[in-house]
Amino acid sequence: MSEVYAARRALLRERYATAGAEAAVVSRPANVRYLCGGAPAGAALLLGPAAGPEDLLVCPPDPVREPGRERVEEPLRTLLLPMTEAEADPVVTAAGLAASAGAGSLAVEEHHLSVARHRAVAAAAPRLRLTDLACAVEQQRLVKDEEEISCLRIAAEIADQALGELLESILVGRTERHLALELERRLIDHGADGPAFPTVVGTGVNAGRPGHTPTDRRVEEGDFLCICLGAGYRGYRSEVGRTFVIGTTPADWQIELYELVFEAQRAGREALAPGTAYRDVDAAARHVLDAAGYGEGFGARTGHGVGLEIDEDPRLSPSAMGKLDACVPVTVEPGVHLPGRGGVRIDDTLVVRPEADGGPELLTITTKELLAL
Amino acid sequence: MSEVYAARRALLRERYATAGAEAAVVSRPANVRYLCGGAPAGAALLLGPAAGPEDLLVCPPDPVREPGRERVEEPLRTLLLPMTEAEADPVVTAAGLAASAGAGSLAVEEHHLSVARHRAVAAAAPRLRLTDLACAVEQQRLVKDEEEISCLRIAAEIADQALGELLESILVGRTERHLALELERRLIDHGADGPAFPTVVGTGVNAGRPGHTPTDRRVEEGDFLCICLGAGYRGYRSEVGRTFVIGTTPADWQIELYELVFEAQRAGREALAPGTAYRDVDAAARHVLDAAGYGEGFGARTGHGVGLEIDEDPRLSPSAMGKLDACVPVTVEPGVHLPGRGGVRIDDTLVVRPEADGGPELLTITTKELLAL
Repeated sequence: MSEVYAARRALLRERYATAGAEAAVVSRPANVRYLCGGAPAGAALLLGPAAGPEDLLVCPPDPVREPGRERVEEPLRTLLLPMTEAEADPVVTAAGLAASAGAGSLAVEEHHLSVARHRAVAAAAPRLRLTDLACAVEQQRLVKDEEEISCLRIAAEIADQALGELLESILVGRTERHLALELERRLIDHGADGPAFPTVVGTGVNAGRPGHTPTDRRVEEGDFLCICLGAGYRGYRSEVGRTFVIGTTPADWQIELYELVFEAQRAGREALAPGTAYRDVDAAARHVLDAAGYGEGFGARTGHGVGLEIDEDPRLSPSAMGKLDACVPVTVEPGVHLPGRGGVRIDDTLVVRPEADGGPELLTITTKELLAL
Repeated sequence: MSEVYAARRALLRERYATAGAEAAVVSRPANVRYLCGGAPAGAALLLGPAAGPEDLLVCPPDPVREPGRERVEEPLRTLLLPMTEAEADPVVTAAGLAASAGAGSLAVEEHHLSVARHRAVAAAAPRLRLTDLACAVEQQRLVKDEEEISCLRIAAEIADQALGELLESILVGRTERHLALELERRLIDHGADGPAFPTVVGTGVNAGRPGHTPTDRRVEEGDFLCICLGAGYRGYRSEVGRTFVIGTTPADWQIELYELVFEAQRAGREALAPGTAYRDVDAAARHVLDAAGYGEGFGARTGHGVGLEIDEDPRLSPSAMGKLDACVPVTVEPGVHLPGRGGVRIDDTLVVRPEADGGPELLTITTKELLAL
């Protein structure tokens, strides 16, 4: 693995060198992890002008080991700050080291560093010219390699298994919170680092509610039951969302709403292809719901990228700029929520693939039939 | 409750007005919540020069409702950004509103806003003079009112109950991860919003390891079992840590190590009093471990404040500046970890009270005897 990380750092080094910076400090946790594998929380990665060996990972004392991180091995020079510097900021330390190593300019992540931390960096290394690394690492992370995709594939399988097991159990009478906790336990049973994000379980009026947090409401006959969960596997995060009906026969309005959202979600999935504009994927799904008069109930985005973060670029929204590339994993997750009645959300994680390779690769294979449980 | 929030905002208004700002935007989530009760993730609070009614909470579309938040009611003017502005930054929107309302200067939280967001604010309101609100809200949050302390007391009771129930069950053969998940389920059973932080369960060689994340290691006879958990209740977060021995009779080294850490923790607790320097609380606990030659194995801090965040001011560390006040809740949590053997951590949440009121109030009442389970 370690060659992979070294290659990623070499590519980043070219980018900031081209932009006129002699060194860079990466501080955003997912970016640090992408560039050196396992990294404790709060660590800062110092990249020098020279080759790999110059790179240094500056870690705070008492580093928090996050699940999945300890698995990755990376022979990177590491500086563990002593307890006496417990309050020290690894970014400031790294900048000081860059300055004393003779660097004249340093690129930092201005979208991650607070104004106060940035000021502390400038104060610690006054002769260092600070530039903006911007989202150079996020851009590198956009297209995944097959190693990353296989981690996402496993993460998706784990979530499918956990969901499948839950559906075989009795659901009526159990609360949203307990169903969410059971799903998270099953994710770990099946080898996940942990949940990729807080599991969403919404039943009845809560089903399909955007940003819903599980409550003590119990599942009842006739409810829509909306579940969205994901697994983290070696740091990579999947997402799957399904909606079910509780009881023997769904009501007509439930069948109609489900078929509509399914139609929108399929349109979004079918729009996934290299070269397609992000906003066109959003439009494909959104158009179906708008045409049926549910545009308002729909959220701000049809989907988003997934990887080391559950919500990363690209954004599949009306205002998003850019086009899909092959090997970009995204979610397609349209939904409709009718206040006071409930709603439907259907959410898959797919990898964009060219037509020649069979088109988009579906990672979340749980059925999208409307199951009556 | 709403008068409480209005009073907090009025106090903050005095502070930034004295510092020469006409308006302020609060963006750090815990600070927003402190000043207006429930607030969706990503919301920004605009405080004007005038009285309460001028204040405005700017919320992103699809606001995520976090547990416990929906309980708080607050008649605050709210602006929900439309879906078409899904990518808009509520802080930038709030700054623009302040400028168009005629404010000439605006205080922002430079320790929370990234350099990039700060730049966007400046660009959106070029005639606005931006100043630093710094940690004015964090300073206000330091001393808790009795309403806040009663939430912490309930949070601590919930964690004590969850821990007590776990201890009555069979532990040998179960993994750290499953014990952690069961504890988190029990927290919710007893009415918690959720865990205050990821539950730590370390057994055997992992016991007492700083920053440990639960693994698949199973509890064995003769292990130290170290558990640290907390509940969130109405947003307030407690913390309790205990260490047990698995089996009938602890080994001599286990008894000695436990008694030493207990001694250090008691020294830290007894040092809690209004007017005591933060560093003196740390020194009281640290001295006991240093004297026994375990200074190295000890972490960077003896404890920290708790409230709307699990790790907030004050820091009880050797380099911390400042003195304790009455009604400040803190943890006292010294520990020792012996690589390859395991260790002990004992962690309480207490509220600083004057001697006349009986001294520090212990919120986490689970026994600190060395139990053999």
